[in-house]
Amino acid sequence: MNDAFYIAVGTELLNFRVNLYSPVFSQKLMRLGFNLKGEITACDELKSIIDALNFASKRADLIIISGGLGPTFDDLTREAVSKFLNINIIYSKEVEHFLLDKNCDISKPNIKNQCYVLESARLIKNDNGTAFGEVISTGKKCFVILPGPRNEWESMWPDVKNIVLKEFQLPEIYNRVIRFADISEVSLENILRPIMQKSNELRYTVLAGPNSCDFSITHNNKRLVDSVVDEIKGLTNEYIYGYDDDTIEGVVGKMLSEKGRNLSIAESCTGGLVSSMITDVSGSSRYYIGGINAYSNEIKERILNVKKETLEKYGAVSEQTAKEMSENVRTIFKTDYSVSITGIAGPDGGSIEKPVGLVFFGMSDKDKTIVEKRTFIKKDRLSIKKAASNTALYFLYKMIKS
Amino acid sequence: MNDAFYIAVGTELLNFRVNLYSPVFSQKLMRLGFNLKGEITACDELKSIIDALNFASKRADLIIISGGLGPTFDDLTREAVSKFLNINIIYSKEVEHFLLDKNCDISKPNIKNQCYVLESARLIKNDNGTAFGEVISTGKKCFVILPGPRNEWESMWPDVKNIVLKEFQLPEIYNRVIRFADISEVSLENILRPIMQKSNELRYTVLAGPNSCDFSITHNNKRLVDSVVDEIKGLTNEYIYGYDDDTIEGVVGKMLSEKGRNLSIAESCTGGLVSSMITDVSGSSRYYIGGINAYSNEIKERILNVKKETLEKYGAVSEQTAKEMSENVRTIFKTDYSVSITGIAGPDGGSIEKPVGLVFFGMSDKDKTIVEKRTFIKKDRLSIKKAASNTALYFLYKMIKS
Repeated sequence: MNDAFYIAVGTELLNFRVNLYSPVFSQKLMRLGFNLKGEITACDELKSIIDALNFASKRADLIIISGGLGPTFDDLTREAVSKFLNINIIYSKEVEHFLLDKNCDISKPNIKNQCYVLESARLIKNDNGTAFGEVISTGKKCFVILPGPRNEWESMWPDVKNIVLKEFQLPEIYNRVIRFADISEVSLENILRPIMQKSNELRYTVLAGPNSCDFSITHNNKRLVDSVVDEIKGLTNEYIYGYDDDTIEGVVGKMLSEKGRNLSIAESCTGGLVSSMITDVSGSSRYYIGGINAYSNEIKERILNVKKETLEKYGAVSEQTAKEMSENVRTIFKTDYSVSITGIAGPDGGSIEKPVGLVFFGMSDKDKTIVEKRTFIKKDRLSIKKAASNTALYFLYKMIKS
Repeated sequence: MNDAFYIAVGTELLNFRVNLYSPVFSQKLMRLGFNLKGEITACDELKSIIDALNFASKRADLIIISGGLGPTFDDLTREAVSKFLNINIIYSKEVEHFLLDKNCDISKPNIKNQCYVLESARLIKNDNGTAFGEVISTGKKCFVILPGPRNEWESMWPDVKNIVLKEFQLPEIYNRVIRFADISEVSLENILRPIMQKSNELRYTVLAGPNSCDFSITHNNKRLVDSVVDEIKGLTNEYIYGYDDDTIEGVVGKMLSEKGRNLSIAESCTGGLVSSMITDVSGSSRYYIGGINAYSNEIKERILNVKKETLEKYGAVSEQTAKEMSENVRTIFKTDYSVSITGIAGPDGGSIEKPVGLVFFGMSDKDKTIVEKRTFIKKDRLSIKKAASNTALYFLYKMIKS
């Protein structure tokens, strides 16, 4: 596998904003047969970007640079590449036409600036912005220069991919990701070890998330990868909720959409996060009707109609309360499905019988209610909220699927 | 200002996990008088870490390294520093005693591994884990080696700070951050330009967030910084919700807590995100009672009692609906305060009169209801949800404060 290096340009990425792109580029590069060897964040200074180019180009054949292509004085990526590779910057009529077609006012100096490109670059059109992508090949090294915003560079990726595959004369690499929930990384590896040890041709990686796991398999032989995916599916099907770019909220939403069914949610310890995840999906108003965040016991009783005796006898964090929460929210909101979550997110409020991290889940449809219990140990408040939310949606997925 | 460089060690940071720490270290370093010049993420290979050390130490005086100090075979940071600086690794009785005191079983090889440290390092005790921090000084360069998990290195930071200040014989730098909401970066800079131009002794930075802005002022003269903060406060007080590490959800929670008042929330387009933010704060059950996510119009009408005529005449995304949502959720949940949010998160569902990004907010207490309208343009669905949620909490803050 060839090595790639990623350079993120922008002082703001050092001081304020988190750079979210390394794993995104890594996944995309893996599918091209490249291993992301390292990443440098350079500040908006010419020397800093040139230093990064120098470092990266000694350690990888493919260098991806994002950011610093905008129209302002501190956008220096193009100039840095020009100096580093000793390539002129020229005025591009192609970019000018593109901008004029978009009704950009190129009499403004900062818009006009966007028309300057590296002399030998292959240009990649930007459907979501004004800065073109540029690809420069120098013998065996390939520099891919992309604008910073994800929606801009992501729409250019198909072109980048084609150029890079040709440039390095590579067969296309085939990658599948299997998405698991409610199984630990260790348990998953124990189940899959025999498969992983059978072949050292394939490249496997595992990523553990909040009560979830992604398992990635890569090779240029599609048939080989697919057969391994099938084999894994046979062993672990009950924990799989999706593949590749699937998210649990997307998969649940798609199932509800396709079945023409709808959903309500009753949350306590997750405090609205499950509903927020469900509504992150565009079009979720087709199947998500609404929900109740019943943070206090009074609301559980008065609005969600959980019996006073249940709360007194078993407590708010109990199988019985979770059951009533999900059954009642489904009745109140008149939905086909419902899910409820009640637990202890911490850091306070735990006891020996009911420790921080203990969460009960209720899932109801017209025929039945299922209650599940999980304990997320050694996690902070936000991680418990996230793990519990993922798990609630996974249990819901299982109920809808069955 | 001296330069610092940050090295993050871990293959997972390239392939799967996002490294969230650069801005956190940057803020901490700024308070010590250091400017974060760049960041490298190195994979778990000896050569990769040594390369990063070499690059960083040529460009900065202070090098912070996090990760790769654990007990497994791919934790190579200590070995890399040892090779790079030509310093022996020795067995530390101090660490051994510490681990024995914690009832760690040092007969296990991977626990015993943790007892090995760099020969000339100053050790920093880890209250939340087993790997000690290590600080190495070599003439003018200082290498600070920290474990990966934030709760581990953050608890060591006071010790790191003291060592670094002594090592570089620095006066402590004083930094204040003023947190603004509902004002754009450009408007804020226009108001503050006269102040910023008055003195080039102070260092200013601005970060724009989702309908929020953080303004940071740094200098070693506390009195100078404080006087500028006062001056800024005088000009912009209406947009300020907090300082330094304050969050809008934390500030709202603290005010409610101190006043002994409680809160309910009715959400439409934010789908539960405002409630989730409020419940991210530990202890929020003292003041957050609960809320209704009324995603469908039917629920707005049937559960939140928004009048059918209101929905028909003005629509769900309207001043009138926002007003009724906040008044009714306050009545239903019997709380002192309430906030409501209804808008168009997109990407579909917009029109010329009501574009994607249009959001109405209602804030109620026993005396009154205030309705505000904002349009968050050119943002994607998740950014609109986040900007609207920040804004809702800011409006609530203003109502509680007044």
